[in-house]
Amino acid sequence: MADLVRFGVSINDGLLNKFDKMVVQKGYSNRSEAIRDLIRNQLVELEWQNEEQEVAGTITLIYDHHVRGLSKQLLEVQHGCHDLILSTMHLHLDHLNCLEVLAVKGLVKQIQEAAQQLISVRGVKHGRLTITSTGRNLG
Amino acid sequence: MADLVRFGVSINDGLLNKFDKMVVQKGYSNRSEAIRDLIRNQLVELEWQNEEQEVAGTITLIYDHHVRGLSKQLLEVQHGCHDLILSTMHLHLDHLNCLEVLAVKGLVKQIQEAAQQLISVRGVKHGRLTITSTGRNLG
Amino acid sequence: MADLVRFGVSINDGLLNKFDKMVVQKGYSNRSEAIRDLIRNQLVELEWQNEEQEVAGTITLIYDHHVRGLSKQLLEVQHGCHDLILSTMHLHLDHLNCLEVLAVKGLVKQIQEAAQQLISVRGVKHGRLTITSTGRNLG
Amino acid sequence: MADLVRFGVSINDGLLNKFDKMVVQKGYSNRSEAIRDLIRNQLVELEWQNEEQEVAGTITLIYDHHVRGLSKQLLEVQHGCHDLILSTMHLHLDHLNCLEVLAVKGLVKQIQEAAQQLISVRGVKHGRLTITSTGRNLG
Repeated sequence: MADLVRFGVSINDGLLNKFDKMVVQKGYSNRSEAIRDLIRNQLVELEWQNEEQEVAGTITLIYDHHVRGLSKQLLEVQHGCHDLILSTMHLHLDHLNCLEVLAVKGLVKQIQEAAQQLISVRGVKHGRLTITSTGRNLG
Repeated sequence: MADLVRFGVSINDGLLNKFDKMVVQKGYSNRSEAIRDLIRNQLVELEWQNEEQEVAGTITLIYDHHVRGLSKQLLEVQHGCHDLILSTMHLHLDHLNCLEVLAVKGLVKQIQEAAQQLISVRGVKHGRLTITSTGRNLG
Repeated sequence: MADLVRFGVSINDGLLNKFDKMVVQKGYSNRSEAIRDLIRNQLVELEWQNEEQEVAGTITLIYDHHVRGLSKQLLEVQHGCHDLILSTMHLHLDHLNCLEVLAVKGLVKQIQEAAQQLISVRGVKHGRLTITSTGRNLG
Repeated sequence: MADLVRFGVSINDGLLNKFDKMVVQKGYSNRSEAIRDLIRNQLVELEWQNEEQEVAGTITLIYDHHVRGLSKQLLEVQHGCHDLILSTMHLHLDHLNCLEVLAVKGLVKQIQEAAQQLISVRGVKHGRLTITSTGRNLG
């Protein structure tokens, strides 16, 4: 595991005051934890700007399972990119609507293409690609 | 199920041309499907501006399960908002890093608060709240 | 002017390494400057979540000045919210397209409403509200 | 000028209903205008994913003009990318804080680099790059 080090930040007392209020409001136990989160958020954004970077993420889909052929088509697209999909979670929100979440890992461009294909399937009401990281570059 | 109706859109031919290219590029089977997605995206955004609206979403967390007390604290927070959490999916990305996805349903403000609490736990390397809809208002 | 203080951040050396690379890549002269920017970005986002907060911002519009009645309508909307508009900059991008930028200051909800009204005018090809701050709460 | 054409969109009546409410709420004069805006927003986002695309935009900066050397450094950076900057608007928000808006046009990657350089200058409290289009590809 990585070694813990320490560095100093110089800041105006007014800004520090506001930061401290935010730390409490967001439920952080201390400033360092909040700072580390700000840093890691920025690193994750940079990772996703590099198409050839390996990343993790989730694809969230809301769909009406009554739409004819929809489940079959979603399955086919998923098989076409099965090497990216780590696992799938499926929930019945009501008698019509399903929430499906795919956990994915792969290159940025592969994941973006897979998300595109799934979201554009007819009957998918809403789709989102959520970017995160494999965690390996986040200390 | 809702009835299918039809309405006309007037548009410059140059803009229509660019739209048609985007429809193909994104993998939509036709213009109507692409338009419906644009509309639904905007409706989901509006839903999330209303704190008292019932919505669905996912909370994605990357964490190092070796951090002492982390799993216990995540469990405690989750129990504190158990009525919002529909299901949880947990994945071992490597020997250190876990990807956990919580499917959630509830009022916007409840979900935002739960996400905040989970993301700010020490040892959580990256966290994201993904907004979607219960599907009920998306036709 | 506010006093300069200093606080320490504890962090894994691996994460610090990646942060240092980002500091260089983004052109910051030192870590403190980068950290202060991360903090201020988050504070600005929080300011804009409060409808009653006074903020500053810009409204950017791209439009075709040949569209009949457009300039007149934009002027009318602007007069309706003249107390929010600090100044306007207008540029001729080519023989058709104009770029207009309005610097605005006021309550979040007033500015959002003004932006909405301007962006929805027929002939406005693209519009954006950019959020920033009056600077008073950013140390 | 481009010719006006018309195409039909098939949609569930429930979704159309919600869309119509949004059209009114956002102040659009009719459905076509709202649809065209949704299309153009997406096209602008696609433009900005291509580093070699010519685009327009604005860079918004909030800074304290009392910080020593700041104005000089901002000027120097601006001269280094003078071919991208169409015009600049400067406002005195109060006795300390300035709002400066730069209207820019150039390749995506040039504009992103210029924004980065300006935002990272010490004393700049908040900076934003706002993406829009030259209008040429928006019908």
